[in-house]
Amino acid sequence: MSETATNNPAVTPTAVTVLGLGPMGRALSRALLAAGHDLTVWNRTPGRAGELLELGAKEAASPADAVSAGDLVIVCVVDYDAAHAVLEPAADALRGRTLVNLTADTPDRARATAEWAREHGVEYLDGAIMSPVPLIGTADAVVLYSGPADLFERHRRTFAALGGTAAYLGAEPGRAAAHDVALLDFFWTMTSGYTHALALARAEGVSAEDIAPFAQGILGFMPTLLDEFARNVDAGDHPGDESTIASAHATFEHIVHVAEHHRLDPGAAAAALRLTTRALAAGQGTHAFSRTADHLRQG
Amino acid sequence: MSETATNNPAVTPTAVTVLGLGPMGRALSRALLAAGHDLTVWNRTPGRAGELLELGAKEAASPADAVSAGDLVIVCVVDYDAAHAVLEPAADALRGRTLVNLTADTPDRARATAEWAREHGVEYLDGAIMSPVPLIGTADAVVLYSGPADLFERHRRTFAALGGTAAYLGAEPGRAAAHDVALLDFFWTMTSGYTHALALARAEGVSAEDIAPFAQGILGFMPTLLDEFARNVDAGDHPGDESTIASAHATFEHIVHVAEHHRLDPGAAAAALRLTTRALAAGQGTHAFSRTADHLRQG
Repeated sequence: MSETATNNPAVTPTAVTVLGLGPMGRALSRALLAAGHDLTVWNRTPGRAGELLELGAKEAASPADAVSAGDLVIVCVVDYDAAHAVLEPAADALRGRTLVNLTADTPDRARATAEWAREHGVEYLDGAIMSPVPLIGTADAVVLYSGPADLFERHRRTFAALGGTAAYLGAEPGRAAAHDVALLDFFWTMTSGYTHALALARAEGVSAEDIAPFAQGILGFMPTLLDEFARNVDAGDHPGDESTIASAHATFEHIVHVAEHHRLDPGAAAAALRLTTRALAAGQGTHAFSRTADHLRQG
Repeated sequence: MSETATNNPAVTPTAVTVLGLGPMGRALSRALLAAGHDLTVWNRTPGRAGELLELGAKEAASPADAVSAGDLVIVCVVDYDAAHAVLEPAADALRGRTLVNLTADTPDRARATAEWAREHGVEYLDGAIMSPVPLIGTADAVVLYSGPADLFERHRRTFAALGGTAAYLGAEPGRAAAHDVALLDFFWTMTSGYTHALALARAEGVSAEDIAPFAQGILGFMPTLLDEFARNVDAGDHPGDESTIASAHATFEHIVHVAEHHRLDPGAAAAALRLTTRALAAGQGTHAFSRTADHLRQG
């Protein structure tokens, strides 16, 4: 594990191991090979390494063998249960090496894995991939990291090969996963809201093709709204100059009404209606919708 | 009500009445005055017309008086209950005039209002405003209309004054409202998802300001996804080439886990998890998330 290897462009790049060859693990592997890294891969189910072997990767017979071949070990599997199933048998081989966990899971599990790594003498960074598979290895890809700053610095050039933005978020190991879960919440709620909207339109005899161009137009309102709501939430002040909780509440009632009329699951609208109802009961009908961030707490 | 008034630029624009002077009603009124229309306004609570009177509007003492002063009557209030409370006492005055209902409500209520208008000898267009107040009267504003095509054509120039895109969606009176409720479902679910994400981040000690730039980045994935999901839903084919229901399901489980860990309402993630669970039970784990549009049907 040589610090100079990544800081001095003249020396050989770090030998890297990738554990997990799902679509994301394969994309990470291709990006590492393209950047000239010596790469060893392993996957629970064999036969996924084909194209990578052609590009110069070596396939290991076990996680421990794979780990032994790399200075930097990247694990990217379905969740932390799967990650631990891979890492536990390789714990001895990992000792003294750097483990970067790009598996998506919750912040508390990221902290628990960091603790596990500490106990086993493994240097540990937790990461979160914010970009879809096709962007990996391009300037547009974003990957978040948290853990020891010197460890991030030591491997910065390798991380740059995975995506143009390698963002270091701080020493607290759960911080990347905390960003990840919040941003996935945004992305997947937006995506499920759109799918729900298409189903609602279909129930009213309107095709998805008819809805899509107007939905594209609505996306145009979001950049301003995202920054405005962020300011509101951080400041604890939610001026309802343009749109209020009262009007959002009426809208959610309409959506739920139409969904129920068609015997469709009201989805996110019913969840949001709970929040606007609480905000109205607190006399906040004239506040901006961002105020509902204060009404999520449950019994 | 002269057809030539709107088709011949040389003649005086249609006299218009606006019923309802909330923020949207006032914005519509300003746009109509700017386009040179003779404008009469009315609001249930007096005192809202101030700036409009200075710009040349006249204020009527009752809905019937206001209606009598206009060839084209626009109503924009909180919902159709409020609209009917305004329109019923003015039914005689409305006879033979054109009523454009820009109040947001459900498609079935739009159809019922069209039927009410027919019974009272009122020409009727139902409309839906897709843009926020500050855009009204600009090239960027979008307003949808449904109802008789000739009626839309007759007032096309007046509608152009309200927003650059005046989209005619067809004769079925509920069609504008059907688009509206689906698009509002998308917009408000996206907005509530973002607010939920900010609350989740805050519970993990991450500020909204830290989340916002990455959320802006995620918006960049949406234009492609919106068109792809629309094609999937219309075709009934949901190829999971890049992202699958199985991975979305794991993500929703993480979000719900983190929310519950912090005793926060899991919100839209719990609703989406119901859908991915049904899709997995149907053996569709490898399909794109858009497949969940087929799993909304309830009992």
